[in-house]
Amino acid sequence: MKNEIITMAHGGGGIKTQGLIKDIMIRHLKNPILEKLDDGACINIPEAELVFSTDSYVVSPIFFPGGNIGRLAACGTINDIAMQGAEPKYLSMGLILEEGLALHDLETVIRSMGEVLNETGVLVVTGDTKVVERGKGSAIFINTTGIGIRNPEIDVHVSNARPGDVIILTGTMGDHGIAIMSQREGLKFESDLESDVAPLWGMVSKLLHEVPTVHCLRDPTRGGVAAALCDIAETSGSGIRIQEPTLPVNKEVRGACNLLGLDPLNVANEGKSLIISSEADSAQVLKTIKSHKLGKKAAIIGKVVYEHPGMVILETKIGGERIVEMPSGEDLPRIC
Amino acid sequence: MKNEIITMAHGGGGIKTQGLIKDIMIRHLKNPILEKLDDGACINIPEAELVFSTDSYVVSPIFFPGGNIGRLAACGTINDIAMQGAEPKYLSMGLILEEGLALHDLETVIRSMGEVLNETGVLVVTGDTKVVERGKGSAIFINTTGIGIRNPEIDVHVSNARPGDVIILTGTMGDHGIAIMSQREGLKFESDLESDVAPLWGMVSKLLHEVPTVHCLRDPTRGGVAAALCDIAETSGSGIRIQEPTLPVNKEVRGACNLLGLDPLNVANEGKSLIISSEADSAQVLKTIKSHKLGKKAAIIGKVVYEHPGMVILETKIGGERIVEMPSGEDLPRIC
Repeated sequence: MKNEIITMAHGGGGIKTQGLIKDIMIRHLKNPILEKLDDGACINIPEAELVFSTDSYVVSPIFFPGGNIGRLAACGTINDIAMQGAEPKYLSMGLILEEGLALHDLETVIRSMGEVLNETGVLVVTGDTKVVERGKGSAIFINTTGIGIRNPEIDVHVSNARPGDVIILTGTMGDHGIAIMSQREGLKFESDLESDVAPLWGMVSKLLHEVPTVHCLRDPTRGGVAAALCDIAETSGSGIRIQEPTLPVNKEVRGACNLLGLDPLNVANEGKSLIISSEADSAQVLKTIKSHKLGKKAAIIGKVVYEHPGMVILETKIGGERIVEMPSGEDLPRIC
Repeated sequence: MKNEIITMAHGGGGIKTQGLIKDIMIRHLKNPILEKLDDGACINIPEAELVFSTDSYVVSPIFFPGGNIGRLAACGTINDIAMQGAEPKYLSMGLILEEGLALHDLETVIRSMGEVLNETGVLVVTGDTKVVERGKGSAIFINTTGIGIRNPEIDVHVSNARPGDVIILTGTMGDHGIAIMSQREGLKFESDLESDVAPLWGMVSKLLHEVPTVHCLRDPTRGGVAAALCDIAETSGSGIRIQEPTLPVNKEVRGACNLLGLDPLNVANEGKSLIISSEADSAQVLKTIKSHKLGKKAAIIGKVVYEHPGMVILETKIGGERIVEMPSGEDLPRIC
């Protein structure tokens, strides 16, 4: 397999497809449901509120500091489910491979997915592989669609933010987006900057156990913290105020943003969460998050207010104010 | 919107993405769960056996006689679930759009998905849209992942084929694959040949109601009837014998296959099912299927036997026999 590449026949549904499934997929994603290799997976579910979420991953390049498209595709959908307060249980995986892809690269990507699954207990239970001609795709695209089970006693939703609430960010902003950009543009930084891509369910599960009354969770992915806060303000109909000096940013990210003319508020994260809770709960939320390995740099970054409903205001370092707007989406294409 | 095209910003997660979702997705796929526009959909499920199935659709060209990639993406996953004897309920939709795609074409594709949903009562409840640069994709790729609910009293599975069973095919072979090929190669046929792409749950539901003891269902998609039968023979450990004169094939498909050097047995279908039942049930199966609009040309094509376990044998018109092999998958790329 060392020098083998993907050919159109690997996507034809015949012998070559079966070989790929057995040699790579089953090896790294093995579990009793997937091994049945049926066209669909059969899973037993108790009476439940399910969360069902999908994302396609098209990040370019597929390998980047701190991860690759496989790790991202597993974490991204796990996190979307966790942000709804649900325990991620099952994933499907749909691959679109470009003819000519090295089998070795495919295996590295699938192995990374397997590592996230082992860490979280989530299972890939069904999958599909297609191959497109050279120049009709871009190495690997991955769709993951997940099913999670929600504890009916938990009510986290972006519409639940209320004036008086406190806004906590679980760590530094912009690491993922800048790691991708630096790889793509060949930028070098003094120290190694890595994507923060990580599965958040472990930390969220601990939080929901210790502070079940938390109001909302949101992972600031595409569009960064700015887009996530604008969405929370609009959906909840409350105002949001954040304080620039409190915003956690790595110095490498700050430097790269200066160089590229980007605002870290708009840059994607793949291992962070915004948490909104009552002021009474906020000290316990911060303590719980800081005690988890993914939350050591957590900080209170602002609050929910009665004023300017639907709008996000940044109080700047020099004592001014500016409106934080929903990013247009043109800044950083193909980061996830 | 008339002359508008997809730009990178449509995939950035900002204002342009939101516009696309509201103007096209919600308009054609509208339902109360999708309209919440959360990162994941919340669905209430009774205690159940769920079937979970995923497929990415990369068919080229995206418009073909009898359908388009949107109709295919809805029907394909609905059918995968129906083949497990489960009622398709919810779909996710992940779009990967190529920069430069006409918005009008995107809307046509999404409208076709909506038509299948209206016809079947299935809901798209969550989605995701990504955009890749020109030359890094191919107009539209669609992943649909579906959830269905299985009646626990139904036990259909490819491993359930037993010697003595009868094999029924619900209609003509190869219409989908040849419709795609003819469009791609610019072939013209005397009469219009159309893809058979259709949602099978209506017909399957009727069958399971009237003959709940049916043994297996399988849709002969990639690799055609040959691949599906080889899989059934291998999984069940039984032999399969089919009779060439009984195989239903449209004359246009036969002509095109002769011209292209293809065997209709290997060509994809997207609106047909293989059904295996006991001999005692087979007359009722055939009657039920033939009374449905999608099954008028249904026929008994063979039987399951004790001899040659795991192998499929074709009895030819001229009285000979040949082994039907699992297609390699190189014949017809990107037909689904």
